[in-house]
Amino acid sequence: MTSPDPDTGLLAPGWAGSPAASATGDGACLQALLDAEAALTRAQASLGLAPAEAATAVTEAADAGRYDVRSLAERARGGGNPVIPLVAGLTEAVGAEYGPYVHRGATSQDILDTALMLVGARTLDLLLADLDRTQRALSRLAAEHRDTAMPGRTLTQHAVPTTFGLKAAGWRSLVLDARDRVTAVRDSLPAQLGGAAGTLAAFGAYGATDPVELATVYARELGLRAPRLPWHTLRTPVADLAGCLAFTAGALGKIAADVLTLSRTEIAELAEGSGGGSSAMPHKSNPVRSTLIAAAARRAPHLAATLYGSLAAEDERAAGAWHAEWEPLRELLRLVGGAAGDAVELAEGLRVRPDVMREHLDLTHGLIVSERLSAELAPVLGRARAKELLTRLASEGRPLAEAPELTGVDLDPTHYTGSAGTLTDRALERR
Amino acid sequence: MTSPDPDTGLLAPGWAGSPAASATGDGACLQALLDAEAALTRAQASLGLAPAEAATAVTEAADAGRYDVRSLAERARGGGNPVIPLVAGLTEAVGAEYGPYVHRGATSQDILDTALMLVGARTLDLLLADLDRTQRALSRLAAEHRDTAMPGRTLTQHAVPTTFGLKAAGWRSLVLDARDRVTAVRDSLPAQLGGAAGTLAAFGAYGATDPVELATVYARELGLRAPRLPWHTLRTPVADLAGCLAFTAGALGKIAADVLTLSRTEIAELAEGSGGGSSAMPHKSNPVRSTLIAAAARRAPHLAATLYGSLAAEDERAAGAWHAEWEPLRELLRLVGGAAGDAVELAEGLRVRPDVMREHLDLTHGLIVSERLSAELAPVLGRARAKELLTRLASEGRPLAEAPELTGVDLDPTHYTGSAGTLTDRALERR
Amino acid sequence: MTSPDPDTGLLAPGWAGSPAASATGDGACLQALLDAEAALTRAQASLGLAPAEAATAVTEAADAGRYDVRSLAERARGGGNPVIPLVAGLTEAVGAEYGPYVHRGATSQDILDTALMLVGARTLDLLLADLDRTQRALSRLAAEHRDTAMPGRTLTQHAVPTTFGLKAAGWRSLVLDARDRVTAVRDSLPAQLGGAAGTLAAFGAYGATDPVELATVYARELGLRAPRLPWHTLRTPVADLAGCLAFTAGALGKIAADVLTLSRTEIAELAEGSGGGSSAMPHKSNPVRSTLIAAAARRAPHLAATLYGSLAAEDERAAGAWHAEWEPLRELLRLVGGAAGDAVELAEGLRVRPDVMREHLDLTHGLIVSERLSAELAPVLGRARAKELLTRLASEGRPLAEAPELTGVDLDPTHYTGSAGTLTDRALERR
Amino acid sequence: MTSPDPDTGLLAPGWAGSPAASATGDGACLQALLDAEAALTRAQASLGLAPAEAATAVTEAADAGRYDVRSLAERARGGGNPVIPLVAGLTEAVGAEYGPYVHRGATSQDILDTALMLVGARTLDLLLADLDRTQRALSRLAAEHRDTAMPGRTLTQHAVPTTFGLKAAGWRSLVLDARDRVTAVRDSLPAQLGGAAGTLAAFGAYGATDPVELATVYARELGLRAPRLPWHTLRTPVADLAGCLAFTAGALGKIAADVLTLSRTEIAELAEGSGGGSSAMPHKSNPVRSTLIAAAARRAPHLAATLYGSLAAEDERAAGAWHAEWEPLRELLRLVGGAAGDAVELAEGLRVRPDVMREHLDLTHGLIVSERLSAELAPVLGRARAKELLTRLASEGRPLAEAPELTGVDLDPTHYTGSAGTLTDRALERR
Repeated sequence: MTSPDPDTGLLAPGWAGSPAASATGDGACLQALLDAEAALTRAQASLGLAPAEAATAVTEAADAGRYDVRSLAERARGGGNPVIPLVAGLTEAVGAEYGPYVHRGATSQDILDTALMLVGARTLDLLLADLDRTQRALSRLAAEHRDTAMPGRTLTQHAVPTTFGLKAAGWRSLVLDARDRVTAVRDSLPAQLGGAAGTLAAFGAYGATDPVELATVYARELGLRAPRLPWHTLRTPVADLAGCLAFTAGALGKIAADVLTLSRTEIAELAEGSGGGSSAMPHKSNPVRSTLIAAAARRAPHLAATLYGSLAAEDERAAGAWHAEWEPLRELLRLVGGAAGDAVELAEGLRVRPDVMREHLDLTHGLIVSERLSAELAPVLGRARAKELLTRLASEGRPLAEAPELTGVDLDPTHYTGSAGTLTDRALERR
Repeated sequence: MTSPDPDTGLLAPGWAGSPAASATGDGACLQALLDAEAALTRAQASLGLAPAEAATAVTEAADAGRYDVRSLAERARGGGNPVIPLVAGLTEAVGAEYGPYVHRGATSQDILDTALMLVGARTLDLLLADLDRTQRALSRLAAEHRDTAMPGRTLTQHAVPTTFGLKAAGWRSLVLDARDRVTAVRDSLPAQLGGAAGTLAAFGAYGATDPVELATVYARELGLRAPRLPWHTLRTPVADLAGCLAFTAGALGKIAADVLTLSRTEIAELAEGSGGGSSAMPHKSNPVRSTLIAAAARRAPHLAATLYGSLAAEDERAAGAWHAEWEPLRELLRLVGGAAGDAVELAEGLRVRPDVMREHLDLTHGLIVSERLSAELAPVLGRARAKELLTRLASEGRPLAEAPELTGVDLDPTHYTGSAGTLTDRALERR
Repeated sequence: MTSPDPDTGLLAPGWAGSPAASATGDGACLQALLDAEAALTRAQASLGLAPAEAATAVTEAADAGRYDVRSLAERARGGGNPVIPLVAGLTEAVGAEYGPYVHRGATSQDILDTALMLVGARTLDLLLADLDRTQRALSRLAAEHRDTAMPGRTLTQHAVPTTFGLKAAGWRSLVLDARDRVTAVRDSLPAQLGGAAGTLAAFGAYGATDPVELATVYARELGLRAPRLPWHTLRTPVADLAGCLAFTAGALGKIAADVLTLSRTEIAELAEGSGGGSSAMPHKSNPVRSTLIAAAARRAPHLAATLYGSLAAEDERAAGAWHAEWEPLRELLRLVGGAAGDAVELAEGLRVRPDVMREHLDLTHGLIVSERLSAELAPVLGRARAKELLTRLASEGRPLAEAPELTGVDLDPTHYTGSAGTLTDRALERR
Repeated sequence: MTSPDPDTGLLAPGWAGSPAASATGDGACLQALLDAEAALTRAQASLGLAPAEAATAVTEAADAGRYDVRSLAERARGGGNPVIPLVAGLTEAVGAEYGPYVHRGATSQDILDTALMLVGARTLDLLLADLDRTQRALSRLAAEHRDTAMPGRTLTQHAVPTTFGLKAAGWRSLVLDARDRVTAVRDSLPAQLGGAAGTLAAFGAYGATDPVELATVYARELGLRAPRLPWHTLRTPVADLAGCLAFTAGALGKIAADVLTLSRTEIAELAEGSGGGSSAMPHKSNPVRSTLIAAAARRAPHLAATLYGSLAAEDERAAGAWHAEWEPLRELLRLVGGAAGDAVELAEGLRVRPDVMREHLDLTHGLIVSERLSAELAPVLGRARAKELLTRLASEGRPLAEAPELTGVDLDPTHYTGSAGTLTDRALERR
C-alpha cells in the first residue's frame, strides 16, 4: 500500500528518522488503536462476557499492516474521529461470528484516549532512556571539569569566574528534574474506559456485573493504570504529559542555549562533536544538535499550552477541546523525543576547551574578580573609596595586575571560583 | 517508493484528505523546494550566468516524484535542513555537465524560505476560494433570515431579541475580514534570495553584475514578490502569514462556537446539514464540522504565537528560531485550510429553524423585552419604580402579558429587534 | 507615598479585591523583597558573619511601608530590576554603621527570585485553602445527587443518561488533582542564593567558611527549601509553578464550562447561587463566577507557556528570559488565586434542579436510552435489524414508548445510569 | 482616595514610568470609560435625544479624579465588569435631573470596548512616535556604516562578511514594517455601540429614529471609526491590535537579539549607550535596554495568542472570551509601548566599533571568504579539487594568506561584501 504524499518529517530534522518518530507516527497510532480494541475484547473474554475465540480473532486482526492508514484518515472526516472507520474495518476483518464483540460497549473516545496513552507511554520510555544517557554523559563532564575555571556570564557580560564542572552539573540537575517528572507521569498514564457518556452503562447492558472491574482488566492488558474514573472530560493525564514534556524541552533547551553561546566563533569554549557542514563554506561547523534542540524548546511551550487549554472541556465529551489535543500531543511527544536524542549526541560528543576558557578569564584584565576586590578592599579603604578605586581602574582599561594599589592582592581568577567545586560534588551525589 | 509509516492525517480529521493537505504535505513541500532551485537556475540563465541547457536540465530534474522524501528527511538531520541532501540529489540527477549550476550562489535558507512561500501562496489561494464560498452562503442566509427573530444571548442568558439575519451577517463580516487580510498577505509573499549571509556576494563571485536584478527575475519565475531585502532574519512574511491565519481560524471559530451552542439538544435552533453519527446511538447527529473548526480555532493561536516568537532571530541566520518555524507554518496552513473547507460545508448546509427560535423568544415569559419596558415605563413611573415593578414581575415567573400594570404595552418580542434589519442590509452591501 | 498595594485590578474582576491580589500586589512583592534581604543578614549574623545588631537593624528597616513603590519601580529601569534601587534605599534606611551588611555578597537575582518564591508560597497557601473548600462543597453535592439522573451530553447532543453526582464527583477529582499538584510544588519552593554567578564566591570573600550552609540557614529563615544548587538559570521552580497553576486553572475551567452550559436559559439545570445582574434587564441572572473562572482558564495556559519558554535561559543569568518571568508569574498566581475564590463561591452556592434534569431526559422521546436498546435488541433481532429499527424510530420523532416493537422493554432513562453510583462512591473515597 | 494611576510596575522595568504606562494604567482606563459615557450622552444630545444640559453635566462629571479606582475595581466583582459600578457612581455624580441620561440605552460592553479602543489609540500614537524616532536613528546608523564590514554570522558561526550598514538597514526595515502595520490598525479602531444584544434596540425605545446615526456621531465625538456593525462578538479590532503589537514586539526583539549577541564581552562590536551597572562589579555594563526589549518580545506572542483565542466568542456576548481580553490587551499595549521607548534609547545611543568588527573578520584566518574562493577556484581547479583544497586549508588552521596555492587571490574580507552597499541604499530609500 503506497502513499503518494506522506509526512515523513521533511520539515522536521529534529525528529525525522528517530525512534520517537516511529513510536508516534500514524502507523504506531493505528497499531495502538488496534491494541486498545484487542485488549478490550480480551478483557471481556476473561470476564466471561465474550467467547475466548472472539478475543483471539480480534487480537489477530489487530495488526496495523492490514489497514490502509490514509483511507482511514480520510474516512475519519465524517464522524470526526478515526475510530469510527477503524471499527468498521476491524469488524469486517474479524468476520461475522466474532465481529459483534469488536468495540462492544465502548465509545470512540475510550479507544482513542487509550491509544494515545499507549503511544505516550512507549515514547516516554524512549525518552527516559535518552535522558539517562544524557545525564550520565553530563555527569562525566562535570566530574572531569570540576575545577576547570571559566567566565561566569550574566546579561551577556563577564561577571565572576565559575567552573565548567558546575555548569555541566547544573545541566545535569535539569535533566534529572526532567527524568523525575517524566517518570512520575509515565507511571500514572491510565487506560480510558467509560462508554458513551462515562457511566460504563453499555457494558452492563451487555452483561457485565462489575464494569469497573472490566476497566481494571482492560488496563492491565495494556500495561496502563486503571482509571479512577472515566476521564473523557477530566483531562489530567493529558495535562500531565504536557507539563512534563514542556519541562523536558526547556531543560534540554537550557543546555542548547549555553552550547550555542559558548560555541560562537569568538567564544569557542565548546564545540559540538560533529558540527553540520556547508557546501560553499568548508570552514563552517555548525552547532546543529543544539540548534534543533533550541527549536524544539521554542515550540514545546505552545504545544503544551494548547493541551492545558483543553482541560476546560464541557459536558461528557467536548466538541473541539478533545479534538484539539490529538495532534499537539503527538507532536510534543516526537519533538521532545527527537530533542532528547539530539541531547544524547550533544552531551556525549561535546568538546570542551579549558585553555580557551582560561584565556577568556583574562579578557577583562582582571576585572572579572572585581567582586572579590570589592569585598577585600572595602574593610581596608571603606566601601566608597574601594568602589571609587575599582571604577577608576575599570575605566582605564589597564590590567589590574599593574595597579600599584593592588599589589599583593590575589588576582588569579582561577582562585575565585567560590563553592563551585563543592556545589558540583553535591550535585553529582544525586542519582 | 513506499513509506512504512507516513503521517497521513490519522489524528487530523480537520484536514486529512483536503486540498490544503495536498498543498502542504511533504510531497508538495519537496516540489516547492525543487521549483525554487529550478527557478534560480533559469533566472541565472536568463541573465547569461548559466547556459540555457543547464536551466532546462535542472527544470527537468526538478520533479518531486524522482526523489525519496523519507530518505531526504532523514538525511536532513546532519546539517539540520532538507536542502543540503536535496541539492546533492538534484545535482546528481542533473549530471556532471550542468550539475555545477544547481543551487549556484544560493544558501539553503534561500530555497527553503522560498519553497514555504510557494506552499503558502498555493494554500492561501485554496483558502480564499473557500472563504468566498462561505461568505456567499452566509450572505444568502442573512438575506433569507433578515427578519427571523431569535433570542439574543449574553453571558449564556437570554437578553433581548435579535435576528438570525444579523447573526449571519455578522459571521459573514468576519469571513470578509479574513478574506481581506489573507488577500493582502497572499499578494505580498516574497521569494528569498540572499546567499550565505544575505549580501548576494556569491552571485557576484559567479559573475553577476547586478545580483539584485537576479533576485527580481527569480521571484518573477516563481510568481512571488521580489524581496526588498533578503529576509533571512527579517521575518515579516512569516509573521504576516501567522497573523492572517490565526485571524481566519478565529473568525471561523466564532461561527462554529455559535453553531455548537445553537444546535444543542435543548436549543436546536440550528443543525448542521449532515451531522456525524454514532454506531451505538442512532439518534445522534453530531455537529462535526463545527467541532473540527472549533478545534482548529483552539490550536491556531498557539501556532501563530510560535511564529511571532521567531521574529526575534539573531544574526544573519538564527540557530533555532528559523528551524522552529517550518512545521508550525505548514500546520497552520493546513489546519486553517481544512477548517475553511469545513466552513463551506457548514455554511452551505446549515439548517435554520425559525419556529424554534420563535418559541424560545417566549421562554422568559416576556422578560426578553424587559429592556424595552424599562425604557417605556421609566418616563411614566420614574426610573426607580419602573425597575422595581419589572424586578417584581421577573421574580414572580408569571407571563408578563398577564400583568395588569402592563396592559396595552407591546410585549411582542418580534417587534423589538431594533435596527437588526438595517444593520443586516448595510452589512450585506459590503462586497 | 502612594498606596502600598497599588495594583487595583480595574480590568480584573477575577482577582480584584481578593486575598490573592493582596498577596501578590506590588506592596506584597516589595515586602517579600525586603523579607529576603532581612533573612540574608540574619542568616549571616547567625553564622557570625555580621553583628547581631546589623540583623536587627535590617529586619526593622525591612518594612514595605517605609518605601515608595512607584519610585522604586521607576528607578528599576536603569539597571533593569527593582533590587538595585531597593538595596540603595534599604542601606540608607539602615544607616552608616550596619548599612554595609545589607545585601552583602548577594546578587539582585538572589533577592528577586527568593521574593517571588515567598509570594508564590503565600499565594499557594491561600489557593490550597480555597481548593479544599471547593472540594468539600463538591463532595457534598456529589453525595446528595448520587442518584440524580440527567442527560449525558457528547459533542453538544444528548447521548445516554448520567447522574449529577458523577459529574460533581468528577469535578471534585480534578480539584483534588489540582490540590495534589499545588501541594507538591508548594512544599518544594526553594530560596535562591548564589551570588554574582552562582558560585557563592562573595560570601567566602566576606568570610564564610561554608557558604552552602549560609544558603541553608537563609532558606530556613524564610520557610523555604534550601536550594540544591543556585538556580539562576536552572528554572525548575518557576516551571513547576507554571505547571501546577495552569493545571488548576484548567481544572476549575472544566467546572465553569459545565456550569455555563447547564445554566443556559434553555437548559437551566444549574444556576449560580447569586448571579450578576443587569441594570436594564431585571430578569438577567448571569453566571458571573463561572464566566470569570472561564476567562482565567483561557489566559492561564499562555502565561504558563511564557514561563516554560524561559527555561531555555543562557549563561549564569539570562538577558531577557529571566525578566520575562516576573509579571507572568505574578499574574498567574493572582489569576488562579482569584479563580479559586470564585470556585468556592460557585461550588458552595450552586443550585441544582433535579426536576429540570429529569424533564430533559425525555427530550429525545426515549432515544437517550437507544444504546441500551441496541444492546438488548441485537441478540434478539440481530445487530443489523436492531440498528435499522432504532434508526427508523429515531427518524419518526415519535416517543419510543409508543412503538409496538419495544413493548415490555425498560425505557426509563433513570434506570440506565450504569455504574454512575458506584463510580461516585469510589471517587468520594478519595481524600 | 488612592493614587489615580496605580499600576506602578515594580516587576515591570520594561514599562514602569513610561508614557505607555500612563496611557494604559487603571487611571487612564477609568478616564477612557468616562470619556465613552460622556461622548454617548453628548451624541444623544446632538441628535435631540437628551437635553444639552445633560451632556454638559455628564461631561463635567466624567473626570477620573472624582472616583475611587480601587473601590470600582472591587465592586466590579459582582457583575463581572467595572462599568456597572461606574455607571452607578457617574449617575450619582450627575445628579437626579440628568442622571437618567447616563449610559442611556447602552450596555456595559459598549463602554468597555470603546474605552479600550481609546486606550489603544492613545498608546499606539505614542508607539508610532517612538517607532519613528527609532527608524530615524537606524537610518543614520545605516548610512554612516554603509561600508563598515563585519562578520556575517549564521547558526552562531562566521559565514561571509556583511556590513553593519546592511544590518542596521534591515533593522530599520522591520521597524518600518511595524510602523505600517500599527498605523493601519490605529486608523481602523472603531467605537462600540450596540446595546444589550447588538441591535441598538434600546436607543430606538428611547426615541432615536436612526440609531445607526447615533453610533456614527458617538464615534466622531471620540475620534474613533464608526463601526460597520456592533462587534460585541465580532472581535476584529482586538485581533488586529494583537497582530500589530506582536509584530512590533518581534521586530524590536530582532534588534535586541542582535545587540545582545554583538555586545557580549568576547564580541563587543556594539555597546549600549549607557549600560546598567552592578554595585559589586564596577566593570559591568549590562545591555539593559536590549534585555528588557528581549523580555517583551518573549511575552508578546503569548499575550497576542490569548487575544486571537478570544475571536471564537459565542452568542451576542461571550461568557469568558470577552473577559479574557481586557488585561492581556492592556498588558500588550504597555509592554510594547515600553519596549519602543527602550528601542529609541537603544538606537540613538548605540556605540559601534568598526575596528573590532574589522579584527573579527580575521578570526578565521581568511576562511570567512572561503565561499568566494570556492567560486573562484572551482572553474580553475574543478569543483571537487577546489573544495578539497579549502577543506584542507581550513583544517590546518593557518592563515590562508600563507597558502602558496592562493597566491594572488584577493583574500581581503572587506572586498567581499557583495551587494551590501546597494541593498542598504535601496532600503534607505523607503520612507
